[in-house]
Amino acid sequence: MTLAEAGEDQVVAQLVKALPNDARVLVRAGDDCAVVRHEPGLLLLKTDCVIEDVHFTRASSPRAIGWKALCRAISDVAAMGGRPGDGLITLAVPPSLQLSWVRGLYAGLRRAAETYRMNLVGGETARSLNGIFISVALTGYLPSGRYVTRAGGRPGDSIFVTGKLGGSLAGRHLRFEPRVEEAVWLNENFHLHAMMDLSDGLAKDLPRLARASGVGFRLDRAALPLNRGCTADQGLGDGEDYELLFTTALEEGTRLQAVWAQAFPRLKLSRIGELTAARTPVGRARGGYDHFRL
Amino acid sequence: MTLAEAGEDQVVAQLVKALPNDARVLVRAGDDCAVVRHEPGLLLLKTDCVIEDVHFTRASSPRAIGWKALCRAISDVAAMGGRPGDGLITLAVPPSLQLSWVRGLYAGLRRAAETYRMNLVGGETARSLNGIFISVALTGYLPSGRYVTRAGGRPGDSIFVTGKLGGSLAGRHLRFEPRVEEAVWLNENFHLHAMMDLSDGLAKDLPRLARASGVGFRLDRAALPLNRGCTADQGLGDGEDYELLFTTALEEGTRLQAVWAQAFPRLKLSRIGELTAARTPVGRARGGYDHFRL
Repeated sequence: MTLAEAGEDQVVAQLVKALPNDARVLVRAGDDCAVVRHEPGLLLLKTDCVIEDVHFTRASSPRAIGWKALCRAISDVAAMGGRPGDGLITLAVPPSLQLSWVRGLYAGLRRAAETYRMNLVGGETARSLNGIFISVALTGYLPSGRYVTRAGGRPGDSIFVTGKLGGSLAGRHLRFEPRVEEAVWLNENFHLHAMMDLSDGLAKDLPRLARASGVGFRLDRAALPLNRGCTADQGLGDGEDYELLFTTALEEGTRLQAVWAQAFPRLKLSRIGELTAARTPVGRARGGYDHFRL
Repeated sequence: MTLAEAGEDQVVAQLVKALPNDARVLVRAGDDCAVVRHEPGLLLLKTDCVIEDVHFTRASSPRAIGWKALCRAISDVAAMGGRPGDGLITLAVPPSLQLSWVRGLYAGLRRAAETYRMNLVGGETARSLNGIFISVALTGYLPSGRYVTRAGGRPGDSIFVTGKLGGSLAGRHLRFEPRVEEAVWLNENFHLHAMMDLSDGLAKDLPRLARASGVGFRLDRAALPLNRGCTADQGLGDGEDYELLFTTALEEGTRLQAVWAQAFPRLKLSRIGELTAARTPVGRARGGYDHFRL
């Protein structure tokens, strides 16, 4: 059965039935807005989208696409030191699409929401003429009350990255795990100066962090943690790693390195360089993904 | 200059520069997430999208499209009895698009945000292969602490609609005004049982309200407030009116009718029927817009 045959109201009703929602949710998908009780304190807000033939193809399973769509936004919330709260999904699809594809997508979204213990409180559907477009809006909260931006890096800071880089196109970009527990633990136990998640590749994202902080950087290419079979250029440029990139003062970094492996024995932590006083000229770190350069 | 020539970081920087933000906004567009201080109490959450050749064409001015994109979501927040708080814009566009078009769009978004005194705290850009896709995520808050859903209608309720209906395609769909002040005033001064905004046409939206409330309805076609030159069928079916549809107990409605014109002398209020105990069979109210039926 296609979406056109099912009709919009029925499609929305189908999708909404099984969305995870805790007691904080007073009104969920199906009304004009969702209504939630917000934890006291600051609120993180994020939107992000994935688009057919840009971020995924019809060859991938809709479950994996749903996972990726929500986990990208969760990764951004983690990169501020936060936990995801309430998500809303905007879905634009051609009427000829099979209902089963949409059900698969929502199964992936639901799995991500359950894994990271968040609510899905809204789902909007619309018709597109060409291709599938999935936009996620997400709130987040800060267990420690503190957040970490990209802008706090200081000269002399150690630069760290979690996990391994490169080779996302081999399929890793559909099944990555946002570093929520790691980010919250780091934010609660260490004084982080700057943090972001790696979405467009280190070669593009590290200069962004440095620019936001008004500093330069020195990268130790030999220290780059690479996925099996990847070159340093791939580690720098492939993008979609969704690992944490963050900086701390030198001594704080040493303290962190001493205890990391005990806290997260299965995830590598690498010191890959340092921030410098002199701004790094553009073009020194090549590669990475620019959404508007083809 | 096209977006491809400008490059993503520069485009985002350009767009973000002039976004309206008040003192509640601690981190705005440009970091992984926005960070805002939330008013104490409940939080409204909404996402909505407009798509090229579905909701607008390239023939319309990008300013008008920006206005429409944000005002649709503002209208949903109003329909709960709330005021808009913080908005985020997700924009997917082909790289060949002129930067001036995107600037025009943001001028329209900004004007809507300033008119309804809300923040624009985030802007995401992505590449699309075909057409322009604009998704808006919006938070809202409830000045009175109360919200109104679609589900509270009771048999015997009077059904009201603000403004006039029909003829949206003549251009009205690009310059409508969300009924925020009206909705907040209604919610603060009257006991509303159910409310929603009219986006897909009364013929489609009234049955939704009735179904959500578990009741039926009797519509007085002669009482339909129609825009100049529109037939009753157009008033019922054109959609995109963005007026408020709400119900109250009979006596409460009479009290409201006695004072409405003094509060809002320039906006019509019409009693267009009543809710009934017997559910209204599907198909009794024809017309309206179904996103998946072409």
